[in-house]
Amino acid sequence: MNQNNCFYCIKDERLSNLMIPVCTFSTSTLYLFKDQRYPGRCVLACDKHYNEIFELSYKERETMMQDLSKVSKALKLLFHADKINLAVYEDLVSHFHVHIVPKTRDGFEWGKPFSDEKEKHFLEDAEYQDRINKIKMALQDIDI
Amino acid sequence: MNQNNCFYCIKDERLSNLMIPVCTFSTSTLYLFKDQRYPGRCVLACDKHYNEIFELSYKERETMMQDLSKVSKALKLLFHADKINLAVYEDLVSHFHVHIVPKTRDGFEWGKPFSDEKEKHFLEDAEYQDRINKIKMALQDIDI
Repeated sequence: MNQNNCFYCIKDERLSNLMIPVCTFSTSTLYLFKDQRYPGRCVLACDKHYNEIFELSYKERETMMQDLSKVSKALKLLFHADKINLAVYEDLVSHFHVHIVPKTRDGFEWGKPFSDEKEKHFLEDAEYQDRINKIKMALQDIDI
Repeated sequence: MNQNNCFYCIKDERLSNLMIPVCTFSTSTLYLFKDQRYPGRCVLACDKHYNEIFELSYKERETMMQDLSKVSKALKLLFHADKINLAVYEDLVSHFHVHIVPKTRDGFEWGKPFSDEKEKHFLEDAEYQDRINKIKMALQDIDI
């Protein structure tokens, strides 16, 4: 998938079927993953189309990692997670983005990688909006 | 697992059974994963015991992410990877470390997360050493 047909760049229904925008940072955009099997699961996507972490400029990477840290802290507190899992895969979707997955000891796949192949858990629109509002508010209080 | 029984801190046989040191950076240590199912698979572990990305100081995170980028580029070139996968899990091993996993289109689990539950591929000692030497040399040539 190159930049011309990348759904993170085009932002078409392939993106909106998977996730909902939460907020924008200076170099990245935060999305709430529609499959909320892991409550609070989000994606932080770089605004520019890069394939690998080393393609970002020093400044872009530094800024995005700062925002990733901020989001991780906010999600950990908000969803009472015992651990935040982070993953950059992109074998098929070649646009730099990080999966941010709050895990709990008594929740799904504790001690194993989070999975997209298990039963999905979708919410009502109002529930997504409520979760998004809570994340935005939590982010305001985070200082790292 | 707290700092007192953390194998990344103590560096006992629980660590040496899993991985071999490649080199040290200013805030982290690079290890070659003994299971080389994904050729070139490494772990970059923070030298200090932190549980989450947001616990690192700004400077520590910035430095470690720069070194992570450098290693990712070196491994991509050296092992002719089509994509570098990165993952921070640590549900059970609470010491900040990043799995760096070169993937190829015609290799294992392309388009899916890398797995620790599939058949492992161990090398002879001399093969590990050869791979380590090549990674160290490749790192010398990387400028990002």
